Amino acid sequence: MNLLDALGAVLDPPGLLTGAADLAPYLDDPITRARGEAVAVARPASTEAVAAVMAAAAAHGAHVTARGGGTGFVGGAVPGPGQPAIVLSLERMRRIRAVDAVGATMIAEAGVALAAAREAADAAGLQLPIVHGGAGSATIGGTVATNAGGLNVVKYGMARQHVLGLEVVLADGRIWHGLRALRKDNAGYDLKQLFIGTEGTLGIVTAAALALAPRPLARATALAAVASPEEALTLFGLLRRRLGDLVAACELIPRSALELHFARRPEARDPFATPHGYMVLLEVESPAEALDLEPLAEAALAQALEADIAVDVIVARSERERAELWALREGLAEAQATDPRVLKSDTAVPVAQTAAFVAEASRAVEALMPGAVPVPFGHIGDGNIHFNVLAPAAMATEDFLAHKARLAASIAEVSVALGGSIAAEHGIGRDKRDLLATVRGGVEHDLAAALKQALDPAGRLNPGKVV
Amino acid sequence: MNLLDALGAVLDPPGLLTGAADLAPYLDDPITRARGEAVAVARPASTEAVAAVMAAAAAHGAHVTARGGGTGFVGGAVPGPGQPAIVLSLERMRRIRAVDAVGATMIAEAGVALAAAREAADAAGLQLPIVHGGAGSATIGGTVATNAGGLNVVKYGMARQHVLGLEVVLADGRIWHGLRALRKDNAGYDLKQLFIGTEGTLGIVTAAALALAPRPLARATALAAVASPEEALTLFGLLRRRLGDLVAACELIPRSALELHFARRPEARDPFATPHGYMVLLEVESPAEALDLEPLAEAALAQALEADIAVDVIVARSERERAELWALREGLAEAQATDPRVLKSDTAVPVAQTAAFVAEASRAVEALMPGAVPVPFGHIGDGNIHFNVLAPAAMATEDFLAHKARLAASIAEVSVALGGSIAAEHGIGRDKRDLLATVRGGVEHDLAAALKQALDPAGRLNPGKVV
Repeated sequence: MNLLDALGAVLDPPGLLTGAADLAPYLDDPITRARGEAVAVARPASTEAVAAVMAAAAAHGAHVTARGGGTGFVGGAVPGPGQPAIVLSLERMRRIRAVDAVGATMIAEAGVALAAAREAADAAGLQLPIVHGGAGSATIGGTVATNAGGLNVVKYGMARQHVLGLEVVLADGRIWHGLRALRKDNAGYDLKQLFIGTEGTLGIVTAAALALAPRPLARATALAAVASPEEALTLFGLLRRRLGDLVAACELIPRSALELHFARRPEARDPFATPHGYMVLLEVESPAEALDLEPLAEAALAQALEADIAVDVIVARSERERAELWALREGLAEAQATDPRVLKSDTAVPVAQTAAFVAEASRAVEALMPGAVPVPFGHIGDGNIHFNVLAPAAMATEDFLAHKARLAASIAEVSVALGGSIAAEHGIGRDKRDLLATVRGGVEHDLAAALKQALDPAGRLNPGKVV
Repeated sequence: MNLLDALGAVLDPPGLLTGAADLAPYLDDPITRARGEAVAVARPASTEAVAAVMAAAAAHGAHVTARGGGTGFVGGAVPGPGQPAIVLSLERMRRIRAVDAVGATMIAEAGVALAAAREAADAAGLQLPIVHGGAGSATIGGTVATNAGGLNVVKYGMARQHVLGLEVVLADGRIWHGLRALRKDNAGYDLKQLFIGTEGTLGIVTAAALALAPRPLARATALAAVASPEEALTLFGLLRRRLGDLVAACELIPRSALELHFARRPEARDPFATPHGYMVLLEVESPAEALDLEPLAEAALAQALEADIAVDVIVARSERERAELWALREGLAEAQATDPRVLKSDTAVPVAQTAAFVAEASRAVEALMPGAVPVPFGHIGDGNIHFNVLAPAAMATEDFLAHKARLAASIAEVSVALGGSIAAEHGIGRDKRDLLATVRGGVEHDLAAALKQALDPAGRLNPGKVV
């Protein structure tokens, strides 16, 4: 029996795609333009079916690349080298198996859209505090496999913090039933960690037990104009000292990012009367309903104005005003997402080095490509500034594309020199695999290789990615 | 060259103990009465020395048991079977290498006392929110290796949540330099997870990069009398819905525990005029200094009284009153800690099952040992009720000791049947290793064994513990 027959024996008709037209969307990544080859796309609808697919793949030496929502930024969901390869899409495992409002937990299958999981948590009077741009079609499986970050990490942490347990199908087709919904569990090794953030290279996540957080019932949103990233970092420090863990988001917005947004959305208005070099979008929230957070936020920002840390402040006075402020932040990300003239970057540095990172990366980029426009925006509260770069106005797009890798490498170098990471939240995938080997070689690489050898000795799970 | 010579060549004189009297304290565990054998205690004062010790141990096939403060509850720091064995004490690695108040991180060596780390964080205007009974002599290394829990897990999570990076010496003596202080880092596998909560069986933690939290500047403490664990759980739910993540501690106190405390401390007073079957100690805190939490806590508790969830409430009005309430909670734990007539238990269940667990465990214990007194106390907010058991008044201590294992097994069985864990926070060590193999066998055991094989193929790191 060949591989396709073996898959056909364990999948229902909708569960197996083999025609070129059906396969195409799974082999082409519009974000990174990565392309891959596969003989089939398996779309099992149950954990048992996933296990059967994995067993068949093992028996036939097939490589398996798992796929969630296909919203990743590093080409992780497109098959790497090596045939025969199959894509294992979790799209038909879309059941939210349980929501426990008393215990504040949820069990969701891998194919559940993050947006759907967030809605279900909200309906139960709670929240799943993972918020990022891909949330429309990003799935729980991908969220877990990439240890997704987002806008609220400064308060809630990464996806890892919300995973209580996992159900995973291993390379050999066995199922690890680790779907426990316990907030405390020190009974043996914490095996779920093997499958969080490891991008489908050690096992296939089929379901997750998630911790839900209290829903924010009090909230305030504000925008502060600052002169530079140094002041933005100082502002964050002030807010953190005065407001502590009420700070749920703190986002740096440079003028260059705003202008990309305005170019795309001419109807958008500058929030301040005067253009400013940088702005910081702040959101504080608390699940305690009785709290009035506006006065608290205002008082903290007033102190910032008095100390000349901020030069102007807008506090949202209504849900509409809040939405407008967030539309800026979301718009500037969207404006860059598919623009080939913008290099996307995802590094992290220790929070205290954030301003130094922006300064040094700017110098490095200018030295390499005079006239390139830095677009450093993002999560100033957790050290993850996306140091994007807009091509010089006079440079042809093809020339810019040819130089992207060098630009990216120099930005990564700056971040590493400051004690940072070459991949803050988007992961490694295929795109950063070689770079990872150079910056985290030696013992680190050996440990990772040992894990890979232990869980996937034949190297069939998402080959060419991460390790 | 033999093992002792090899160790002598890499350690300074204070760093190597070989005499029986010097070794004795390291081979005897007063808490569990575990005993072990070793040919030497190595006390290296630097990471390089630890690496040299591990290399020497590897060359001579020596087993190595790491030791921190020796405050663990499962006999993990006493050498297991197999000779030659050495104890590797991290007690001389006591340096706090760095505190970054801007970035809110700390780098502390493994031998730093948790109390010292907490003081240093406090001095920097921040907090290391790991709070438990052993904090006097518990160390950072042990805290990481056991993934310590404690009183504030309901708000801050376990030790794992606070570890940003680690420096680890592996079985072969190589050093993994993973001491990164990043809040976001998805560059490859999260290798630090291999050494958190794995109790020294996969590597020796020599230093940790820790995330510090904002210091609580607003706080309120209260004690509520409730009729039963069911009401206690309902109360927790009410508090969580109204106060959200302001809830920093929520502790169940049964009358039986209070009486053990009063027996030991006759000067202690019952906080309420009427004795109550159960009480819940609540603490809310916020790092936002401007918040007045007393009215918030009072309003929530008033609602509880109105709804007949609580029958009486005391709100601490001063630091002294707060200290008195906490003295009760700490006293009841101390009263039981070294009492051989009290079986200590450390299971967890899904939060929603907490009351059911207390009820069913009580039934199971009564059936096995009529007259035994349940002492179910602890962390009602995270499902970790320590279902301790006091021997029947008429039973001789020796008889009780002979039956402890059966009692413990039946309590563990109840918790597992409710979807729980046999080791909520204290870990597995030697004491629960066999039980772990039975409740988490199969694929789970195979995965753990694969990790052990990958990192410690010769099985020399803390043998006889965990896996």
